[in-house]
Amino acid sequence: MRYCSQCGSGVTLTVPEGDNMPRHVCAECGTIHYQNPKIVVGCIPEWGDQLLLCKRAIEPRYGLWTLPAGFMENGETVQQGAARETLEEAQAQVEVGALYALFNLPHINQVYMLFRARLPAPEYGPGAESLETQLMSESEIPWDEIAFPVIHESLQLYFRDRATGRFPLRTGSIRRLEGQARRYEVLIEDNAA
Amino acid sequence: MRYCSQCGSGVTLTVPEGDNMPRHVCAECGTIHYQNPKIVVGCIPEWGDQLLLCKRAIEPRYGLWTLPAGFMENGETVQQGAARETLEEAQAQVEVGALYALFNLPHINQVYMLFRARLPAPEYGPGAESLETQLMSESEIPWDEIAFPVIHESLQLYFRDRATGRFPLRTGSIRRLEGQARRYEVLIEDNAA
Repeated sequence: MRYCSQCGSGVTLTVPEGDNMPRHVCAECGTIHYQNPKIVVGCIPEWGDQLLLCKRAIEPRYGLWTLPAGFMENGETVQQGAARETLEEAQAQVEVGALYALFNLPHINQVYMLFRARLPAPEYGPGAESLETQLMSESEIPWDEIAFPVIHESLQLYFRDRATGRFPLRTGSIRRLEGQARRYEVLIEDNAA
Repeated sequence: MRYCSQCGSGVTLTVPEGDNMPRHVCAECGTIHYQNPKIVVGCIPEWGDQLLLCKRAIEPRYGLWTLPAGFMENGETVQQGAARETLEEAQAQVEVGALYALFNLPHINQVYMLFRARLPAPEYGPGAESLETQLMSESEIPWDEIAFPVIHESLQLYFRDRATGRFPLRTGSIRRLEGQARRYEVLIEDNAA
């Protein structure tokens, strides 16, 4: 950020009075421009014992598999956002259920929220951002071709929980290890209260 | 938003190619300025059968009671943000536990996430944004002086659950009713899966 989005003057990075973090502040009009994490919402769409996955038609991670998910928009709920992304990326209507996975990705300022969701019918297809969509049973998941660590981790937790028949909320954090391409640290919390 | 924060030129509200929502787009440098919901993180700090509440020293809702909560910052996890807000507003160190309440506030583009948290000691006090902090048992909660509907609702759910000894994740949405000051519609989801 270099210019004030309110008045067009230059901004400077400074700690405002009463604050303890540097912010982009406009010296001209005084506007403080906060920057905050974004929410990524998505679904784990279930049809019998199969899940609906999408092959990415866009960068990053073109050609790899993921769950339907994307940035939450203003004016919607997290559940509506998860359903919208599933419709956009996999052309599938879903009934959104309980929140299953909540992951922090602090190195890229994102919070992932993945919901279990029910496909009322096996009707789906690739949206504009997908090359292909496919219902997969556990044995068909292409574990070496999953686009993002957060999706890989969520799917692994999901199948482990499914074997027990219970799906408690799973929370954790995934951090990229510094100086190493595609190496991550994964922390899963124990939420037993 | 009136000016591009990258180049300082004027922005126009238009639907970018391949998108389906109007965005602030810079005609000069092409930057698309997305606006997304913000996350508010906070704690329900427990000491025995008491909860730690804060009396607000700032607008909106100056002088009314709330739980320690505020906007999540870049670079932190939701749990770290909840602990930071509790330290800032109530000068209390907490051990953050499980996520308890997840609320959509789509009319103001916010998602609230409140965590159960344990005070290791009854040590607390008003931070810069609080007039007063107080441990309260259920019978002491000033129900008519709670700052925000989302906090009122979360506290009510909390005490109802506490009576059963179980704290499942509670999710819902709160919408301001149009044309009516301080009238809200509250929807609580049934997450039994």
